[in-house]
Amino acid sequence: MKGNVIVGQSGGPTAAINSSLAGVYRTALDRGAKKVYGMLHGIQGLMNENYIDLSDHIHTKLDAELLKRTPAAFLGSCRYKLPEIHEDMETYKKIFSILDKLEIEAFIYIGGNDSMDTIKKLSDYAIITGHPCKFIGCPKTIDNDLALTDHTPGFGSAAKFIGTAMKEIIRDGFCLEYSKGIVTIVEVMGRNAGWLTGATALSKGEDCAGPDLIYLPEIPFDLNKFSEKVKNLLEIKTSVVVVVSEGIKTADGTYVCELGTPIDFVDGFGHKQLTGTASFLAKQVANDLGCKTRAIEFSTLQRSASHLASRVDILEATQVGGAAVMAADEGDSGKMVVLKRLSDDPYQCGTEVKDVHKIANGEKLVPRKWINKDGDYVTDDFVDYVRPLIQGDVSPIMVDGIPRHLLTPKELSHRRAAAKKNEK
Amino acid sequence: MKGNVIVGQSGGPTAAINSSLAGVYRTALDRGAKKVYGMLHGIQGLMNENYIDLSDHIHTKLDAELLKRTPAAFLGSCRYKLPEIHEDMETYKKIFSILDKLEIEAFIYIGGNDSMDTIKKLSDYAIITGHPCKFIGCPKTIDNDLALTDHTPGFGSAAKFIGTAMKEIIRDGFCLEYSKGIVTIVEVMGRNAGWLTGATALSKGEDCAGPDLIYLPEIPFDLNKFSEKVKNLLEIKTSVVVVVSEGIKTADGTYVCELGTPIDFVDGFGHKQLTGTASFLAKQVANDLGCKTRAIEFSTLQRSASHLASRVDILEATQVGGAAVMAADEGDSGKMVVLKRLSDDPYQCGTEVKDVHKIANGEKLVPRKWINKDGDYVTDDFVDYVRPLIQGDVSPIMVDGIPRHLLTPKELSHRRAAAKKNEK
Repeated sequence: MKGNVIVGQSGGPTAAINSSLAGVYRTALDRGAKKVYGMLHGIQGLMNENYIDLSDHIHTKLDAELLKRTPAAFLGSCRYKLPEIHEDMETYKKIFSILDKLEIEAFIYIGGNDSMDTIKKLSDYAIITGHPCKFIGCPKTIDNDLALTDHTPGFGSAAKFIGTAMKEIIRDGFCLEYSKGIVTIVEVMGRNAGWLTGATALSKGEDCAGPDLIYLPEIPFDLNKFSEKVKNLLEIKTSVVVVVSEGIKTADGTYVCELGTPIDFVDGFGHKQLTGTASFLAKQVANDLGCKTRAIEFSTLQRSASHLASRVDILEATQVGGAAVMAADEGDSGKMVVLKRLSDDPYQCGTEVKDVHKIANGEKLVPRKWINKDGDYVTDDFVDYVRPLIQGDVSPIMVDGIPRHLLTPKELSHRRAAAKKNEK
Repeated sequence: MKGNVIVGQSGGPTAAINSSLAGVYRTALDRGAKKVYGMLHGIQGLMNENYIDLSDHIHTKLDAELLKRTPAAFLGSCRYKLPEIHEDMETYKKIFSILDKLEIEAFIYIGGNDSMDTIKKLSDYAIITGHPCKFIGCPKTIDNDLALTDHTPGFGSAAKFIGTAMKEIIRDGFCLEYSKGIVTIVEVMGRNAGWLTGATALSKGEDCAGPDLIYLPEIPFDLNKFSEKVKNLLEIKTSVVVVVSEGIKTADGTYVCELGTPIDFVDGFGHKQLTGTASFLAKQVANDLGCKTRAIEFSTLQRSASHLASRVDILEATQVGGAAVMAADEGDSGKMVVLKRLSDDPYQCGTEVKDVHKIANGEKLVPRKWINKDGDYVTDDFVDYVRPLIQGDVSPIMVDGIPRHLLTPKELSHRRAAAKKNEK
C-alpha cells in the first residue's frame, strides 16, 4: 500500500468488533500503509472530520491484546444512513474531499446490514466519479443475519454468553420451590432473525436439559398454543424455562411486546425499539396459571460480555479485518469480506469477498428446516452449525479483579480536558 | 465424628453456595463422619424425608471441582419459616425423629438471615429437650447483609460479575451516539442493603469512569434531585449511567418500583418482590428530557454467574463449610460461622463462630460514612472493603464451549425416570 487507510465502526456493537479493528490496523501496517485513521462514530463523525490516528492509541502488542478484549465500538458507532447519490451529491463530495485530504487509499467499514449500505453507496460514487479509493465492508453483528457469509463475527461470542447464561438461569430456576411451580421467560435480542434466540439451545447437554421452549421470530407466535404448552409442562416440571426473541410477532404481524405497552422509539433506519416481550408473557402466564413467574432480559450483556468471548469468534473477527485490507490492497471495492465454512468437524473456515450489492439491506433468517415442526425449538442441525463458533476462550486481562479494557479516544480526550481544566 | 452429618441449602442461591456444600462434605468425611446427607429443598424437604446420600453424587475430585463451579443450590433451596417452638411442638418432634433415624450428629444449614432463624429454633429445641445434635449455620447471601461477619460468601462473586458487567455496559453506552444523549438505568439486587449496588463502583479505574450516580436503598430517594442531576450530567456527557438498587424508596417509604406498577407477589417471609425500578425511572427520564433511555436489570445473573466467580469467594465459601463441620464436631451449636478480616493489604481472613441469636433476622446495611454526602455514590473506603473479595478467578471447566456443571439430584432422578419410562 502506498497511501493511508481509514476504518470505521457502525451499528450495534459486539464483543468482537474491536478485534476486527485490530486486524485492520495490523494488516494495514504490515502492507505498508503510512497511516491508519479511525473515524470517530463512523461515517457521521468523518463528515465532521472527527477522526484519530490509531497509532496514537495502539502503542504496544499489549494494547492490541487489550483492544481485542474491549467490548463496544472502540472508535464509537453511529446509525447513519447516507442519502441516495442522485438526491444529494454534496454529501458525497464532502466525504470524498475529506478522504482526499487524508490521502485515503482504502476505506474499511465494520458493520452489519445497514453499514453495508454505506459501503455500497460510497463505492458506487467512486465508480461514477472514477475515484481510486477502495471501499470494503467487514461483517459484524451479533444477530448473524448478514447474507452470503456463513456467519458473522460477533455472533459466536454472543452465542457463547447466551448459552452459558441460559444454563446458569435454568439451574437457578430448578433449585427454587414454589407450590404452583415457576415459569421463567427469557428475552433474547434478534428483531427478525432467531439466531441468538436459538443459541440458548447450546445450554442443553449431559448436565442440563436446556430451555423447554424456544420461540424464534421466523415463526408466527400463537399465544394460545404457548399457554397450553406451558400449562402442560408445569404439570410435569417444577420449573419451566421459555425463551423468546424480542421480535416475535402474532400471525397478524403485531409484535408481542406491542400487546403490552406501546412502542415509542424508532431509530434512524426506521426500526422499532423492541422490549418487554418477556415481561408481557410472564404477566400473562401468572394471570392464567397463578404460578410464580419471572421475566429476564439478557439485554445489553449479550453484545458486550467480552469477559466470555469465544476464541474462534475473536480470531475470525481479527481475520476478516485483515482480509478487508488485503482485498482493498489487491484492488477490490464495493465488496464485503465473508466467512466461508470449509468443514464442520474439524471446523475450518476461510474468507472470501462478495459483492456488497448482494448483501446490503438483506437479511439471513434461520432456515425453516432448522426449526422443529411445532415451531417452538431449534433442531440438532442448528446446534451443530453454531457449536464450532463458541469454542475456546479469550482470558480477560484481569487487573484488580476486573477485566482491563483499552481506554477509548473519547475517554482519553475527556480526561485530558479535565486535567487541563484542573491545571488552570 | 462418630455419627452422620446432614446439610441443607436455603434462601436465594449464589455462585458460591455449592462451594460451601463441597466444604461441608469434605471436612465431614475427613473428620470421620460415616455418611453425609443432603436435604433436598432444605428443611422443607427434610420434613418430607427428601434427602440424598452425597456420596451417591460426588464420586471423584473432579465431581467436587464441578460442584464448586455449579451455580444455584445443588440440593435445591426453600424459603420456609419454622413455626415458633411453643406454638407447634409437633413439627419439631417430627424433624428430630427424622434426624434420629438418620443418626445425625451435626446439622449444617447454608443460608442467609432467614435460614439462620431455622438454626436458632432447632438449636433452641435441642437445648430444651437435651438432644445432643449440633446445629451450625453457614453464611451465604449475595446481599452481604448478615450481621457479625465481615462479609458473606456469595457476595464476592456477585460483586465481581456486577463490576465487570457494569464496565462492559458503560463502554456500550459511550460508543453509541444519540442527538440528545443516552441515559442507562441499571437495576441491581438488594432489598434493604446496598452492598451489591455499590459494587458497581468496582468498574471505575484507569480505563473506565464508572457509573455516574449510584443510589443505595439506605438513603431515601429524591426523584427531583435525581432528575436534576441527570439533566446536568447530560449537558456535559453523551452517555449517562445511573445505578439503582431494586429497593430504593422515597422519603415516605414507598418503593420507587411501586410508583410504576403495583407489586403483586409476596414470598413466605413477607418480602415483596421488587422489580421495575429501572424501567420506571428510564420512562421518567425519557419523558422529562426527551433523550434516549434504556433500563437494564442484572436480574438472576447476579447470583448465578458462576462463570465469573471470584477465587477468594469460592475458597472462603469452601472454608466456612469446613469450619461449620469443625465447630459442630467440637461441640458448638446454635452458632454461625463468620468471616473475620485480619488485614486488608495483604488481604487475610479467618473464621470464627458467633451466637446465631445475634444474627438471625438481623441486617447489616452499608454504613452512612461509606456513602457520599449527596447520597448518590459510595466512597473509596467502600471500594477498598469490597476489592479484596473479587480477586482471582475460578476457570470454568469448559466442555463444548460451555461451562460444565455437576448434574443435580433432581435432574438425575428426572433422567432415570424418563429412561425407565422409555424401557417400558
